[in-house]
Amino acid sequence: MKKIILAACVCATAFIGVAYEAFAAENNPAIVHRQSTYKVVGGHMGSLKSILFLGGKGDTVYHAESIKAAWDHMGKAYPKGSDVGETRAKPEIWTNMDAYMEKGKAAYGATLSLVEAAKSGDQAAQVEAFKTLGGACKACHKEFRKK
Amino acid sequence: MKKIILAACVCATAFIGVAYEAFAAENNPAIVHRQSTYKVVGGHMGSLKSILFLGGKGDTVYHAESIKAAWDHMGKAYPKGSDVGETRAKPEIWTNMDAYMEKGKAAYGATLSLVEAAKSGDQAAQVEAFKTLGGACKACHKEFRKK
Repeated sequence: MKKIILAACVCATAFIGVAYEAFAAENNPAIVHRQSTYKVVGGHMGSLKSILFLGGKGDTVYHAESIKAAWDHMGKAYPKGSDVGETRAKPEIWTNMDAYMEKGKAAYGATLSLVEAAKSGDQAAQVEAFKTLGGACKACHKEFRKK
Repeated sequence: MKKIILAACVCATAFIGVAYEAFAAENNPAIVHRQSTYKVVGGHMGSLKSILFLGGKGDTVYHAESIKAAWDHMGKAYPKGSDVGETRAKPEIWTNMDAYMEKGKAAYGATLSLVEAAKSGDQAAQVEAFKTLGGACKACHKEFRKK
């Protein structure tokens, strides 16, 4: 696990800022858009982590609401043909779309809880909601994303 | 350049979704927060690229305003001590902060132009503003970010 974390970290530092070039290699608008959406969500999760776990300053309501806004603007993210390209989306997304949508609904529900917790200002509630959303993300990745 | 793009792309697909683990390796809240901010901005730039260049659907006003919001919530991103860790920030940021801030102002100004162009609905103006902002990002990376 440590190796994975380290690899992810090296990858993260290499990746941040080269998004423009990275996306330039993929021309399927749906793939680019959905990866961008996850990136936005991941970014806000990172800021929430900074605030909730590392003592960083920031506005958790803004970050939580921004995650909700990202989902709200996601649109039809997995149209036919977007299984081919620079994507780690598993074929199961398309062959088992109902199950995939359930995972999406769980993440969206967790996001709504996070917004509510952030608005309450309660630290413990926000930490709990953050973890629930993180768990929903991971559960979906485990089933529907290639390694 | 092609190799770099390819490497960045592989990195991007490896990175998306592992944000939580990646950030877990870095405990400086300022580093985590600023990288998260750039990630949010990069994500919205990716969606704009999908819409403006690849024929994707989406609301460019939302994405442009979200970039502005990310900058507005960035706070003091480079405090003392945040030069050490999983960061590609060059020492020149701290030794030449005025020049760095100028680059930041240029990116912010380009963002305001992008919001204006998005609101106008003019495709050519949005493409132009997108390129200007991308150029402002790159100019700063060139001077202040390690390879």
